[in-house]
Amino acid sequence: MNKSRLEAFSDGVFAIIITIMVLELKVPEGTSWAVLKPLLPVFGSYILSFIFVAIYWVNHHHLVHTLRRVNSRVMWANMHLLFWLSLIPFVTGWMGVNNFDKVTVAVYGCVPILSGIAFTILSNEICRTYKEQTPLTRAIAKSNVKAIWSTVLYAAAIPTALYIHPGVSAVLFVSVSVMWIIPSKDIEKALDHE
Amino acid sequence: MNKSRLEAFSDGVFAIIITIMVLELKVPEGTSWAVLKPLLPVFGSYILSFIFVAIYWVNHHHLVHTLRRVNSRVMWANMHLLFWLSLIPFVTGWMGVNNFDKVTVAVYGCVPILSGIAFTILSNEICRTYKEQTPLTRAIAKSNVKAIWSTVLYAAAIPTALYIHPGVSAVLFVSVSVMWIIPSKDIEKALDHE
Amino acid sequence: MNKSRLEAFSDGVFAIIITIMVLELKVPEGTSWAVLKPLLPVFGSYILSFIFVAIYWVNHHHLVHTLRRVNSRVMWANMHLLFWLSLIPFVTGWMGVNNFDKVTVAVYGCVPILSGIAFTILSNEICRTYKEQTPLTRAIAKSNVKAIWSTVLYAAAIPTALYIHPGVSAVLFVSVSVMWIIPSKDIEKALDHE
Amino acid sequence: MNKSRLEAFSDGVFAIIITIMVLELKVPEGTSWAVLKPLLPVFGSYILSFIFVAIYWVNHHHLVHTLRRVNSRVMWANMHLLFWLSLIPFVTGWMGVNNFDKVTVAVYGCVPILSGIAFTILSNEICRTYKEQTPLTRAIAKSNVKAIWSTVLYAAAIPTALYIHPGVSAVLFVSVSVMWIIPSKDIEKALDHE
Repeated sequence: MNKSRLEAFSDGVFAIIITIMVLELKVPEGTSWAVLKPLLPVFGSYILSFIFVAIYWVNHHHLVHTLRRVNSRVMWANMHLLFWLSLIPFVTGWMGVNNFDKVTVAVYGCVPILSGIAFTILSNEICRTYKEQTPLTRAIAKSNVKAIWSTVLYAAAIPTALYIHPGVSAVLFVSVSVMWIIPSKDIEKALDHE
Repeated sequence: MNKSRLEAFSDGVFAIIITIMVLELKVPEGTSWAVLKPLLPVFGSYILSFIFVAIYWVNHHHLVHTLRRVNSRVMWANMHLLFWLSLIPFVTGWMGVNNFDKVTVAVYGCVPILSGIAFTILSNEICRTYKEQTPLTRAIAKSNVKAIWSTVLYAAAIPTALYIHPGVSAVLFVSVSVMWIIPSKDIEKALDHE
Repeated sequence: MNKSRLEAFSDGVFAIIITIMVLELKVPEGTSWAVLKPLLPVFGSYILSFIFVAIYWVNHHHLVHTLRRVNSRVMWANMHLLFWLSLIPFVTGWMGVNNFDKVTVAVYGCVPILSGIAFTILSNEICRTYKEQTPLTRAIAKSNVKAIWSTVLYAAAIPTALYIHPGVSAVLFVSVSVMWIIPSKDIEKALDHE
Repeated sequence: MNKSRLEAFSDGVFAIIITIMVLELKVPEGTSWAVLKPLLPVFGSYILSFIFVAIYWVNHHHLVHTLRRVNSRVMWANMHLLFWLSLIPFVTGWMGVNNFDKVTVAVYGCVPILSGIAFTILSNEICRTYKEQTPLTRAIAKSNVKAIWSTVLYAAAIPTALYIHPGVSAVLFVSVSVMWIIPSKDIEKALDHE
């Protein structure tokens, strides 16, 4: 019961992160179709980050759903995760405005790695509060393998952007997103039977 | 019960979308009554979008009220809807600043169409979770006809803005809004008896 | 029970209105104490509006607490109130930046009048949903007299700003605020016994 | 039960304060690693304030958890606290952009003092509503000693910034933060047994 504020506060931060990113889509001067063209990379970068934050929200929802009791360690692990996610609008804007330049893509790639580590820490802290295993906790534990693979792919995207081509990194980012949008059958079943 | 976070997150996004639009109403230089005049189209565009987002919030409220169980498909259909709605502040600002120029009105008209499609997808996903029909679910199904008509009118507003006159499109936008502000008697009755 | 989303959405809008006003307090250039001085009227205008929105939140809290059932009329009356309140950051910024110039004070004074009317409409719609009178509903009905007096004082502040002195209007604004910060004994008692 | 809106509104304000601070991290021009360097003090100042607001959120969560009944005095004491916290983005931006200049550090130090006083007032108002002491209320009362020490250290940081070195003040700010991130064993135990 006492986790409702942790959820409400996190939902507020998620909602604001996902919405203020759109402020980087600045109203262009002029009214021809042509003035929209330079906004395309900014829009692409917005879509990528919107999906990224959405994936985190969905997983945060599943994970915190299993939490039985809030303690200070969980609160701080959650704050740590929200801190890294709060940097998304900045790196998204920088990458979009500069048309996916290699340095900006490499910096962008750092945020998912740090968020991934923070999510794992939060996940471990929440696991410590379990008194028993449920199908949902087992399904989440299983999805941690997917999380490790995602982090490896994001880590690979950084040298790829710098030394090969930022476009390849963008493909890696999109692949990870697709991997997460396809719902896990285990988690679906566990949610259904709860 | 587990839909409370879906509602809270959506409410947060709705609240931010509706409020950051007002940031486009930039504080003018000077203090005469005259400096307020150029803000009038921006203000008109703000009112139009405020009502548009408000209509979506009211319908989202009715629809999600009938949802019994959250699954990943519903979560992603909801995210998809919020994505299109999040573009409202951008198109509102562009249209307002450029005094309802025809290209900006046409671009503005795309968002309601895409939001309408997203709402229909969400509605279908939620219908799949029903185990039984209630008066409210029947009333919502009935209001889908109204939704299809709205989308047709919005679609008609795009060529109208480009080839006839953007003012006619604005009239279409206002007509759709009026159609939704008048509450549906079926939904009212269904809410009363629940 | 089904009013929780109306509250959550309104709380989100109130929270954003009260917080984005501070964005008008722009980080000044330079680091001497002197650069803070031109910010003083902006800060004064921020304090005034913070208290104004806070008063509305407190009264909205009491009023909606008495609501038993949400219907579309209540939803739209609430949206109407939030619309006028959403203009507060704009009029606050304009008045603050221009050092309480008479035209800006007069425009500022319009928002409380329109918000006051919207609050009365919402209050009437909520009264229609009552099935019985409670001490709280009676206390709120009593406080409507206070609301009418406030609106009269705000209305008086507009010609006062234009033809006498904007400072006198500011005193009127502060007086109304003080009148509302002092808690109503009837409402306190009613809340205690509920 | 009727405190849920107080929590929801406060969570909204906390979430917005913590997130809009990141808007001060403006997207730099250029794409070399070098353009990120001038952002480092802004980033440092962001981290400091993020932790500061997070500490307040955690303590607000514990404190309001003990509240049994909302009255107008509690509402206004809470608004007073949120007012001072709402100034954090402004002082954070000013300090970060000016590379921790002594005047900006001194002004920054004022906000924690005023927030500390506001938190104490809120804490006293909430204590008045207690009908009995619980382990949690005792643990919170104990942590007030920590709060007084924090305020003394923040007060000391102001002359330190002006007459010794702003770096020493920054060390004081960090020390206070560390003191609060380490969870209080009393509060943890009290939360566990509730």
